[in-house]
Amino acid sequence: MTTTRYVSGNRPVDDLYGDLAAANVQPLWEMNDLLTSEPRPSTMPFRWKAVDLWKLATRSGELVPVEGGGDRRVLAMANPGLSGAPFISTTLWAAMQYLLPGEAAPPHRHTPAALRFILDGDGVSTTVDGDPVGMARGDLILTPSWTFHAHLNSGPSPMMWLDVLDLPLVGTLEAIFFERGQSHDPHVSPLRSSAERLYGQGPGLVPAGRDAPTGGPVHSPLTVYRWADTDSALDALLEVNGSNEATLRYTDPSRGSDVMPTLRCEMTRLLTESSSVATRQAGSRVMAVLNGEGRVDIGDQTFSLDRGDVFVVPSWSTCRLHADTTLDLFTCSDAPVLEALSLFRSEVVKTR
Amino acid sequence: MTTTRYVSGNRPVDDLYGDLAAANVQPLWEMNDLLTSEPRPSTMPFRWKAVDLWKLATRSGELVPVEGGGDRRVLAMANPGLSGAPFISTTLWAAMQYLLPGEAAPPHRHTPAALRFILDGDGVSTTVDGDPVGMARGDLILTPSWTFHAHLNSGPSPMMWLDVLDLPLVGTLEAIFFERGQSHDPHVSPLRSSAERLYGQGPGLVPAGRDAPTGGPVHSPLTVYRWADTDSALDALLEVNGSNEATLRYTDPSRGSDVMPTLRCEMTRLLTESSSVATRQAGSRVMAVLNGEGRVDIGDQTFSLDRGDVFVVPSWSTCRLHADTTLDLFTCSDAPVLEALSLFRSEVVKTR
Amino acid sequence: MTTTRYVSGNRPVDDLYGDLAAANVQPLWEMNDLLTSEPRPSTMPFRWKAVDLWKLATRSGELVPVEGGGDRRVLAMANPGLSGAPFISTTLWAAMQYLLPGEAAPPHRHTPAALRFILDGDGVSTTVDGDPVGMARGDLILTPSWTFHAHLNSGPSPMMWLDVLDLPLVGTLEAIFFERGQSHDPHVSPLRSSAERLYGQGPGLVPAGRDAPTGGPVHSPLTVYRWADTDSALDALLEVNGSNEATLRYTDPSRGSDVMPTLRCEMTRLLTESSSVATRQAGSRVMAVLNGEGRVDIGDQTFSLDRGDVFVVPSWSTCRLHADTTLDLFTCSDAPVLEALSLFRSEVVKTR
Amino acid sequence: MTTTRYVSGNRPVDDLYGDLAAANVQPLWEMNDLLTSEPRPSTMPFRWKAVDLWKLATRSGELVPVEGGGDRRVLAMANPGLSGAPFISTTLWAAMQYLLPGEAAPPHRHTPAALRFILDGDGVSTTVDGDPVGMARGDLILTPSWTFHAHLNSGPSPMMWLDVLDLPLVGTLEAIFFERGQSHDPHVSPLRSSAERLYGQGPGLVPAGRDAPTGGPVHSPLTVYRWADTDSALDALLEVNGSNEATLRYTDPSRGSDVMPTLRCEMTRLLTESSSVATRQAGSRVMAVLNGEGRVDIGDQTFSLDRGDVFVVPSWSTCRLHADTTLDLFTCSDAPVLEALSLFRSEVVKTR
Repeated sequence: MTTTRYVSGNRPVDDLYGDLAAANVQPLWEMNDLLTSEPRPSTMPFRWKAVDLWKLATRSGELVPVEGGGDRRVLAMANPGLSGAPFISTTLWAAMQYLLPGEAAPPHRHTPAALRFILDGDGVSTTVDGDPVGMARGDLILTPSWTFHAHLNSGPSPMMWLDVLDLPLVGTLEAIFFERGQSHDPHVSPLRSSAERLYGQGPGLVPAGRDAPTGGPVHSPLTVYRWADTDSALDALLEVNGSNEATLRYTDPSRGSDVMPTLRCEMTRLLTESSSVATRQAGSRVMAVLNGEGRVDIGDQTFSLDRGDVFVVPSWSTCRLHADTTLDLFTCSDAPVLEALSLFRSEVVKTR
Repeated sequence: MTTTRYVSGNRPVDDLYGDLAAANVQPLWEMNDLLTSEPRPSTMPFRWKAVDLWKLATRSGELVPVEGGGDRRVLAMANPGLSGAPFISTTLWAAMQYLLPGEAAPPHRHTPAALRFILDGDGVSTTVDGDPVGMARGDLILTPSWTFHAHLNSGPSPMMWLDVLDLPLVGTLEAIFFERGQSHDPHVSPLRSSAERLYGQGPGLVPAGRDAPTGGPVHSPLTVYRWADTDSALDALLEVNGSNEATLRYTDPSRGSDVMPTLRCEMTRLLTESSSVATRQAGSRVMAVLNGEGRVDIGDQTFSLDRGDVFVVPSWSTCRLHADTTLDLFTCSDAPVLEALSLFRSEVVKTR
Repeated sequence: MTTTRYVSGNRPVDDLYGDLAAANVQPLWEMNDLLTSEPRPSTMPFRWKAVDLWKLATRSGELVPVEGGGDRRVLAMANPGLSGAPFISTTLWAAMQYLLPGEAAPPHRHTPAALRFILDGDGVSTTVDGDPVGMARGDLILTPSWTFHAHLNSGPSPMMWLDVLDLPLVGTLEAIFFERGQSHDPHVSPLRSSAERLYGQGPGLVPAGRDAPTGGPVHSPLTVYRWADTDSALDALLEVNGSNEATLRYTDPSRGSDVMPTLRCEMTRLLTESSSVATRQAGSRVMAVLNGEGRVDIGDQTFSLDRGDVFVVPSWSTCRLHADTTLDLFTCSDAPVLEALSLFRSEVVKTR
Repeated sequence: MTTTRYVSGNRPVDDLYGDLAAANVQPLWEMNDLLTSEPRPSTMPFRWKAVDLWKLATRSGELVPVEGGGDRRVLAMANPGLSGAPFISTTLWAAMQYLLPGEAAPPHRHTPAALRFILDGDGVSTTVDGDPVGMARGDLILTPSWTFHAHLNSGPSPMMWLDVLDLPLVGTLEAIFFERGQSHDPHVSPLRSSAERLYGQGPGLVPAGRDAPTGGPVHSPLTVYRWADTDSALDALLEVNGSNEATLRYTDPSRGSDVMPTLRCEMTRLLTESSSVATRQAGSRVMAVLNGEGRVDIGDQTFSLDRGDVFVVPSWSTCRLHADTTLDLFTCSDAPVLEALSLFRSEVVKTR
């Protein structure tokens, strides 16, 4: 028997239940909690401390070669609510990737989309479909679905960064394709990638006549967003809004949409000694502390926050931030998926 | 410990693995098959025989009241590859719903979208947001996300029909909301629903000035597609194409898109003594035999097909149909989800 | 001198004005009414009587061969406000086309889009990109931009129908292209065109896998909307709305949009002894009486209406209909153009 | 008689023609050139010299107060092909606006969309819906449809800039609305407008949660594009392309579309001693020389080009540029209109 057999305690019903199970059929009326009035996520609120991640990554660097399985030295944050699966939520994968000086992670591509957010350090370049992109603190780098990507540490120090992928979602859709690329000689990243020179020069300025082939994969042609721009944009937004909290969205400059069809990226600045409004939204969010110290309330739990910490906010869980010093928080969510499917909801939650 | 602990056989590495698990972290390099060159679906090919489903439904009708858990007498087809979960694939729920004369399933609504396809019989009406829709053989009825719906059997016979929902997908997105509605007195369905009178009169004819409120849920305002129309459209399409196989798509007449953002519905007619081309596509498909006899090859398995049978085609599995007598096959897939996320692929597979 | 020279009466200013004109430059400050608080259309309200159009068409049929200039025997309604231009408004061309038994108008195509609305008679078929479409009273036939089209009268009687084109608009855009097609032997129209068999079978039913090539011209693949469908849809809409006035929009069944990018088509039924609400909208409208008698107020003018009459409602002019007997009115407007350019406005006007 | 009366020389036909004219009807078969194989634009190629425009503007400043008709001191370039109309093409208005130190052009708004391109000087600020925007050489400033705008010269020198509007097109659509705004005290423009601080900080960075109200006017929220950004983006594009010619498109950073629904803006850099490819496109283009010297071939005419010159390229006329010194050319076209209506065509023209 391959499916669940239910038991009622009533003999003829149990006979029926046996025959149902034998036929790979299950009775809805015995299932609890299939349809709940609000989401009851398996994903649990959780925070990983930067200090722990760095220690574990450093030990991995000493013990495990980058050439191992998966061609990457990656530590996946495994949500304690997901029965041992290596996912930070039911839709998102989040991990720390660690590369020693001189090491290279060879090119490959896959249908799951990925991004890299740099919480510390520099020296690594990521090559996206042949275009090398230098990575430094505060930068967001995209390696969209089915683009070849490789990493090379040509700097003098180990480097660790945050990877976020839509891998669990694409896995659920049973749509994972993967391909190895051609290895290239290590090469130094130029000061600016071609993507930046084509799409990263100024707001609203795009090359004429470079329309993406219709029907092709849809993602931002700009594969890196530099911290200097983000930092000054956050200051300007705070100034215009006259508030203590500002959130920027990273968008595809050729479409105005989210950077990739499955992942929304945002950066929030919350000024020192202030608290954000409490909100909740359908779908899950991974957040990482680029700068500052404080704490976050998620549902009825509170986690302290230090620079480099990563945490997950489950679906429909109320989230509120408190800054002891000015917090800069990177957020990646699956909101574009829920929006595309008419399933997105969000609201401000009243707090005392 | 709440997460998976890996073992390497090497002592310092195993110490690291212990500390990783303690920190809810997992090493990518120990995971196999996370990224496969092509989809390796958990979903298995499977077919449920109409004769079995009818017998089991009839016994359920005798033993189990409709007022039980879930307010519906529903038999879920549970894919043998999904570890006992009550889902026909990782994204789709498919079930037979059974209602005795005089029985009513009370109104509720939920974020998972549903459709009803009638493989046999009539006598039940489904009320969608207050609009009663009669159901008869070959009809497709939509109860889109967050619309209130109830069922009432005012006919003289038991009736069984196929339900398909995107429940597993919405569950994975942790976006399930549910609400009970107000019970209404049983009432007889008028000959035609308001939806049909507004949107179902003629191709391309829609009421002026009835634009849906922007930002609201996006789904077809036409909630029923009648078999008489589908039947003659299939004949016409076969005639124009001059082929032995024709497929119609059910669409939202106000947008031209799929009927609902997560579910694609199609009807295929394959003429007697002919075979379809072999195809495969990313994402899963539920198919049901409205008319005819034949068989289907899915991957390297073959299933005989009789009227009323239901089967599932897993992602990227090659599917080919053979008609002994003219087959009419209803298909519901998650293709709109994959398309919205730039993950859809399909191809014709060469067969000898 | 090729441009306007202004005169002020002040000598040095007039010297300047002379030099401006010599340089093909004009002073804004001398122009009146360039920017008005509301549209002041050149287009005047006007109505052409069916009885006159029939008489003139019949005489043209006796005197003028169809093989003459333009390959069509067409009588253009020339708005009295447009200085003798052969246009019914600044954006729309409306005309009566007249074809004797056995006559054929040979195939050609042009970038201006056209439609044919049949106010009376039958016997002619229009071939659209090779697909013959029979024409009968109350039908709407599309010959979209850059589709080859020809007309053939294979019936026993002369036939006259209403042509509406976006010709003045496309002329203003200086985007008129034109090409003659290959002449074919006269042939009888089948009972139903291929377009109808593919897209005209039932609401929301479209052939799967027939997506239009992206980047190609965008128009409805359904090139004929039959009166029987429209008639019953109007009745159903009146019944559901419980009102004395109903308006249907003809739409592209594959997109849900207007039938063509430049022309909106609608049909209004106003029940006997009732009046419509008074409305006005930016852009111009051509209307034609398919059935009934009554009158129309346009601005401060009133025109009697009989079966077959055609009239024009200028931009932002208040329009109100009064039915002596039930009126069926076809409307063609340039509203999709104004909507695409964010220039559309409409409002209900209060009347005493 | 209000319409054209045709004459054939044949008595009964002329009698018919008289009756047609009396009925405001015209015979298609007598009209020549209504449908031409390719566009035959009325718009003629023409170039206005900067030196002439400056002289005329300076004299206007001496003789005509800014408070005159239209509240603006504006010199409209009148195409010699348009029978004295003050338009540079059938769809576009182009003019030089001139403001003396201390002068202000009071706030108003209108449905025609406008842009300001600064060919020389600075000192004026344009206030767009209350947000003051400083203007300097090479900047592009938008005052989209129905936004209030005013100009103030708070600098020490007269300033002249190029205005381009879609006024003739909106006039043809008979959709001109106009409204005066409240006068405000003159005020100095801050270093950067709110629009720049919100949308002009970095490519792809936009404020989260600032979605435009749906159904509202659609235009770029960024109302100024600074020359420093454009200049470096042109250099980067030339470098990546490795060519001697580069064209950037100005886009709406929140949508990726053209800056306004009716006007496309681009900037082309053509390196010294080189020639562009020859192209033609449906619809008309206004071009202005920001930097450099050279010449342009339009159809079979050639015009010399100096800094500050303005010229018009009629629809479907072959256009080729030649740079004696590196040319920077601003282009404004009606291409978004033609694209929205499926009427756009363009092609490279082979030259010897």
